[in-house]
This record gives sequence, structure tokens and C-alpha cells, in this order.
Amino acid sequence: MSISVKILGSNAASFAYNRHHTSQIIEVDNKHFMVDCGESTQLQAKKYNVKLSKINHILISHLHGDHYYGLLGLLSTMQLYGRKQALSLIGPPGLSEIITIQLKHSKTVFNFPIELTEWKEGVQELLVDLPKLTIKSIPMKHSIPCAGFLFEEKPNFRRINKDYLTETLNPLEIKQLKSGIDVLHEDGSTKYSNEKFTFPPKKHHSYAFCSDTKYDEELIKWIRGVDLLYHEATFMDEMKERAYLTFHTTAKQAGCIATAARVGKLTIGHFSTRYKDLSPLLREVKTEFENAHLALEGRIFEINE
Amino acid sequence: MSISVKILGSNAASFAYNRHHTSQIIEVDNKHFMVDCGESTQLQAKKYNVKLSKINHILISHLHGDHYYGLLGLLSTMQLYGRKQALSLIGPPGLSEIITIQLKHSKTVFNFPIELTEWKEGVQELLVDLPKLTIKSIPMKHSIPCAGFLFEEKPNFRRINKDYLTETLNPLEIKQLKSGIDVLHEDGSTKYSNEKFTFPPKKHHSYAFCSDTKYDEELIKWIRGVDLLYHEATFMDEMKERAYLTFHTTAKQAGCIATAARVGKLTIGHFSTRYKDLSPLLREVKTEFENAHLALEGRIFEINE
Repeated sequence: MSISVKILGSNAASFAYNRHHTSQIIEVDNKHFMVDCGESTQLQAKKYNVKLSKINHILISHLHGDHYYGLLGLLSTMQLYGRKQALSLIGPPGLSEIITIQLKHSKTVFNFPIELTEWKEGVQELLVDLPKLTIKSIPMKHSIPCAGFLFEEKPNFRRINKDYLTETLNPLEIKQLKSGIDVLHEDGSTKYSNEKFTFPPKKHHSYAFCSDTKYDEELIKWIRGVDLLYHEATFMDEMKERAYLTFHTTAKQAGCIATAARVGKLTIGHFSTRYKDLSPLLREVKTEFENAHLALEGRIFEINE
Repeated sequence: MSISVKILGSNAASFAYNRHHTSQIIEVDNKHFMVDCGESTQLQAKKYNVKLSKINHILISHLHGDHYYGLLGLLSTMQLYGRKQALSLIGPPGLSEIITIQLKHSKTVFNFPIELTEWKEGVQELLVDLPKLTIKSIPMKHSIPCAGFLFEEKPNFRRINKDYLTETLNPLEIKQLKSGIDVLHEDGSTKYSNEKFTFPPKKHHSYAFCSDTKYDEELIKWIRGVDLLYHEATFMDEMKERAYLTFHTTAKQAGCIATAARVGKLTIGHFSTRYKDLSPLLREVKTEFENAHLALEGRIFEINE
């Protein structure tokens, strides 16, 4: 399996230099998840060939407009395109109220069920549990309730090495070997040793989306060892005072978090409009964590090693 | 004086063929009014060189998303740009509730005053009264409460013809002549006859924005004789049944309204996404009203004859 992350928006607060508000498409096992949905996300989705019909989960990190003002428009477009299948919508406390009031005044009833879940602030919760994947919330420290999202593939089974097999395995034996157990004869002696007849499982991958947050070392325990970390980096470190006051992070601080959490790769986004040229932010983050990249519109980060 | 109307969005419901959701900028006497604010209006405003700082009035016709989902984002951007001056926001019943709840959850307090007025459904109200202009609501017949907006320059004063004057007029005499009154000697005889010493006033202009509505002949009395009429024309007439069921109008019907109301010029918009090529709609509307035009993105209609 693999995880891919497609960036639809990289800018903070306002639109500038063709940079849009936060939104990403995460694809795992042919399932598509949207994380955040700033204004005009549906236009970005069209631009970058995202099929809305494939999205069955939308996760919203917090209720600042640059992270969700495109949501109602996106849902309306899904309705216009004839959507029937259920949509799981996961967001902050208050999202239900905001949606309900707007639908009430427009007298809109969607033709597809929306299963709306509001996550709890400040704790980690299991939000999505699929056969091959879990998504958990990650508590963020922002000016309003805010969560990140941890995508984790479930551990894979061991793979059977057919080179040594002289006979056909029955389903129970296959299951035992894949689960890492030796297959025994009735007398208790070993029939197939797991070590000999299986390869290790393929690596399972993980991605952490860390939304708007101040520099927060408590975050490290939630994201330790992920293959890919998205972390906001609104400012350069020379503005760390402003970052602190506005509950945001600097590029250097994002790099420190990545290093401390020993992640595989880092991508940064949510750039302040004051930075037309983003290369100084990239240089700065790399002083702390070399394998760092800009989360720019249209970029796809593949996790499959 | 003159009125100019700049089109920012022409499409109904969804985005297609680079056509955007409804929004227009009306300029009168160097004052800028925004009418409707669909999603991504702020991007269209940037594209077509609209200065947000010049807009002091935003009028919303109804609470279908394609007419207002860009509003909160636009207000947020005004805030980010440091706006201080008051903004008059005029919209349907419910708009206040929608805005209040979203600002509550984002803990946002704007640094500029917003004077919010909700118009009353089904009656004509005076919404804006400026020295040189009034804006009144126009009741629309749509599936939810909906209003159009009638922009009318106030009548101009008569202009003094200096060709016949042999002496300087005092302020009272100027005022009398401009108001259409003869200036008299103390004995009651005529000193300056208004007919001789003045020209007729310059024409005052008018523009009617008729938002989403079914075909409605009651509309005619509100818009009679306007210089420019914007009327929705979502469908071709072959779909008039669907237009009726969805509370919309066909191009032919929009032409009939323009003819019956004896307007000067007609522009149509709010096109269904089923029409990639809009020339059939234009041909159809012209069978009823020749001076008809498509309200396409970026087009400016000037009323100054």
C-alpha cells in the first residue's frame, strides 16, 4: 500500500500569488480523503483533476474561514453532480450548527446522507477505522479548537514464501503463517516454521497533517516516526514573536518538530502572504531538517518506500 | 452622472467554462456597490481590478449559496487588508444569524463596523438613500425569500444658460433657476424666466438587478423604463417547464419582461451549466428584445446617455 498527499492550497488567510487556502487530498488504498476546504477548493479540485465523487470523507481542522469556507459550496456541487452515496464529515465542535443554519435558510436538503462527527478538543480520538487504515485526531494548540489528523495504514500481514512449500496450505494454515504463528502438527511439533515460510510484512505507512498551531513540543509524541509530516510554517523565524502571538509556527520551528519527532519527510505550508518568494522559508526549515519541501498547489507527495 | 455595472460572475449554481457565481460591482458617483457575492468572488474581484476598499455597500439577493458563499471570505479579506471604515451589508432575513454564528465559532471580531440590514420579503423598501442615489428592493418570486435591487440616480437640477445673462446671479437666484422657478423682481414681474435662462436637467439613470426569479409579470411595475435591466435567464425556452418548477426564467421570458417594461437595454445572466455555448440564449432573448447582451465575466455596462 501507499499514501499519497495532493496539495490544493498552501496560503494562510488570504489569496496571493496563485496560492490558495488550505486543502489536501489524501489517497490510501484507492480511498480519497479531503482535509480542510478553504474557499474555492472546488475550483482547485477541478484544476488538479480531483474527482469529487471519489471523496467519501472530509475532515476539517478548525473553523477559521481559510480552512472551511469552501465546504458548503463543495457539498452543493456534489449535490448538483447527483451524488447519492453517504459522505462522512468530521470537524470541530460548531460545524454542525454552521451547516444546519445555512441549509435551513436556503431550504436545502441534500440527496445524500451526511454523517457528521464533531471531534473533541484536546484529546486524541479514533475518527475513522477502515480495514486497512485508521485516522486519529491530533490535538493542536491554536487560538480556537483545532485538530490535526494522523493517517496510519494498519500493519500488514507477513507474506508467505512459496519457494519452500511442497504442498498446498489450507486456509487456517495460511492465516496462521500470515499472522506470524508457526503451524504445528497434531503432536505439537512444528509443521511450518513462520521464520522459514514467511517474509516480513510490507511496511505500513503514516502521514500526519498538523494544521494551524503554535510551536508545541507536546505534539511530538503524537507524530513520532511518521513517514510524512505536514506542518504549518506561517512565518520566518525572525517573526517568531508574531507567530507566538497568533498561535502559528515558524519554518525553523517546524523543522525542529520534524527532527525531534524523527519523521521521514517534512512538507510545510500555510504561508503568510508577506512571502512572495518562499525559498527563504525552505532554506530556513532545511537548517533544522534537510528532507523538507514546500507544500505547493498541485504537488503530490507519495509515501511508498 | 452615470452608472456602470461590472460583471464578476454569470453562472448558476456550479462553476463551469470559467463562468463564476453571481456578483456585480455597480459604480455610481464614484461610489462602489457589490451585489451578490458567490464563492470566489474575491478572486474575481482581484482579476477584474476591483478595489475592495472602495466598496462600502454589499447587497445580497438571497441565501442560495451561489449568491453569498463568498461573503464571509470577502469580509475576512477586508479585515486582513486593514479596513477601518464602516460597511453597510444589506441582505435577506437570516443573513445576520449566519454571519453571527460563523464569527462566534472563529472568535472573529472585525475591526470595522458592519451595519447589517435585513430587507423585508415581498415589499419594496428604500434600502439606501444617498445625496445622488437611492437603492430600493424589488420583490422577486423565487423558492426562498429573494430581492432584486433598483438603483436610481436622483433627478438632476436644471442647468443655467449663461448666454443670455448680463449680470451675476446671487445664490438665491441660482437656486431658484436650478429648481425650475422664475426669478421675480420685487414688484412681481419676471426678472429671469426659467424657460429662457436654463437648460433641462441632465438625464438621471437607473439600473435594475433582478436576481433569481420565476417569470413574473408583476415585476414589470417595479422596473418600468429603467435604462439597464439585468434579468436572470437560466434556461432556454424549450425548458420553460423546468424553469417554472425551479423558480427560474428562460431567455425568451427575460426578453418579454424587458419589452413589457420598456427598458433601454437588457443583460442576461445566471446561465445553467448545461449551456457551454451561450449564443443560442442570446439569439433567443433577441427575438423578444433586440438590445440584449450576455452578462459575462469582466464585461462593463455603462449607462451614461
